[in-house]
Amino acid sequence: MEVIRKINIIRYKSSLKEEMEDWVIEEKPLNIFINNKYYATLMCTPNEIEELCVGFLFSNGIITSKDDIKKIEFSTGDIAFINLKKEIEIDDFHKRALVSGCGGGLVDINMINGNNLDIVKSQYTFSGERMLKLMKEFNAMSNLFQQTGGVHSCCNCGDNGIEFLSEDIGRHNAIDKIIGKCLLNDTERNSKMLFTTGRISSDILVKTAKAGIPVLVSHSGPTDLAVDIAKKLNMTVVGFARGTRMNIYCGAERLLFGNS
Amino acid sequence: MEVIRKINIIRYKSSLKEEMEDWVIEEKPLNIFINNKYYATLMCTPNEIEELCVGFLFSNGIITSKDDIKKIEFSTGDIAFINLKKEIEIDDFHKRALVSGCGGGLVDINMINGNNLDIVKSQYTFSGERMLKLMKEFNAMSNLFQQTGGVHSCCNCGDNGIEFLSEDIGRHNAIDKIIGKCLLNDTERNSKMLFTTGRISSDILVKTAKAGIPVLVSHSGPTDLAVDIAKKLNMTVVGFARGTRMNIYCGAERLLFGNS
Repeated sequence: MEVIRKINIIRYKSSLKEEMEDWVIEEKPLNIFINNKYYATLMCTPNEIEELCVGFLFSNGIITSKDDIKKIEFSTGDIAFINLKKEIEIDDFHKRALVSGCGGGLVDINMINGNNLDIVKSQYTFSGERMLKLMKEFNAMSNLFQQTGGVHSCCNCGDNGIEFLSEDIGRHNAIDKIIGKCLLNDTERNSKMLFTTGRISSDILVKTAKAGIPVLVSHSGPTDLAVDIAKKLNMTVVGFARGTRMNIYCGAERLLFGNS
Repeated sequence: MEVIRKINIIRYKSSLKEEMEDWVIEEKPLNIFINNKYYATLMCTPNEIEELCVGFLFSNGIITSKDDIKKIEFSTGDIAFINLKKEIEIDDFHKRALVSGCGGGLVDINMINGNNLDIVKSQYTFSGERMLKLMKEFNAMSNLFQQTGGVHSCCNCGDNGIEFLSEDIGRHNAIDKIIGKCLLNDTERNSKMLFTTGRISSDILVKTAKAGIPVLVSHSGPTDLAVDIAKKLNMTVVGFARGTRMNIYCGAERLLFGNS
């Protein structure tokens, strides 16, 4: 599905103007109904929406596996009807939108300190050099970013390289798409890394922890709270992974140095 | 107030490691109660919280000016009690958190298409060269970004240069802080530009429109929906404003070219 749109712009350069066409990323609402009751509206890049729905529901604790879902149907491209095998109680959000960048941004306040989360048990180790090589591949594969400059990218990877890559106007949505793909494909997550182009705030860390992925790597930096929670949950947080360098904020025991 | 924290990290560079200290940005919950009823939790950088509260309430349509507020009190640093002069009906959010990057991310779905918003009436014009010069100053003044790399910055500016600058882990919060400052200081907004380091999604555009600021400028790119709404509301959207160049997506009539 095409998720970019060509529009007329004026390019200004050194006081001169030029009319031209340029690509911008699409942003659309996705209205999610669970068991015929309105749940939320995500502002998102409208591709991989089944994966987004599954990842979003998982991140929000509505489902624990794809087996909780009886059926997902889409209507007019912007409504998802999700029927679960169980009854659930849904808070009344009324007609508010969880907006871009923020698609999956709602998390239970109790999770903010990592109190309701399981410690991530994983013996996974990885080579720093290998990780930086994968980061380079990740950058090269982020097509929508290269075309529009207006998205965040996310991928999961392990010993066999990059498995899934998703892009979205929202850094939360991009991660939820990856988690959705992992769930739908029964992909092992305990020996994997999650790469994101976005900053690592507590909610991004919590999503990764809930998915059971032990290593979270970003182009950008983490917040202090994200690092605090990661330590509590036995996770590895890497920031500013660019070129030949990176900062390891916690969980450095998973990282192999030198030529090991 | 100090909003950065020094933590021990390992810097990895070309297969070598070095233990060192580095600054990370603080992320804290801010629990907002309106008329003694719980409204929302923002994950934010804990400075300028009165301004953040005021801007957030304004962006969410709870107040239309600072005069709607009777009193704001803070308790234990992470709770804001806001008493309004009027009674309002508050949706029941329960104990969910609007998380970082997403602090101000909740907007009425009806606003997504700009339908409930007033057209921005402004005769303001600006010189492209002047704007790029201000963007350079903006970059230089973004201290928290330079120290931590983990925040978004925002400022408002006009013919007299940069007025207010705010930084936050969330691009929505940073804008709400600026709007809050404008409201608290009775600052004119109709002949101003708003600069942000973040992407321009529909919600960011809507916040700017609601504040009555006619020109929105970003380091990064807009979504198609943001441009569509901006056209409807008679606003100017500029993206990728870096060095000597920028893209004007709409409202180019406000921009003066050449040496004018």
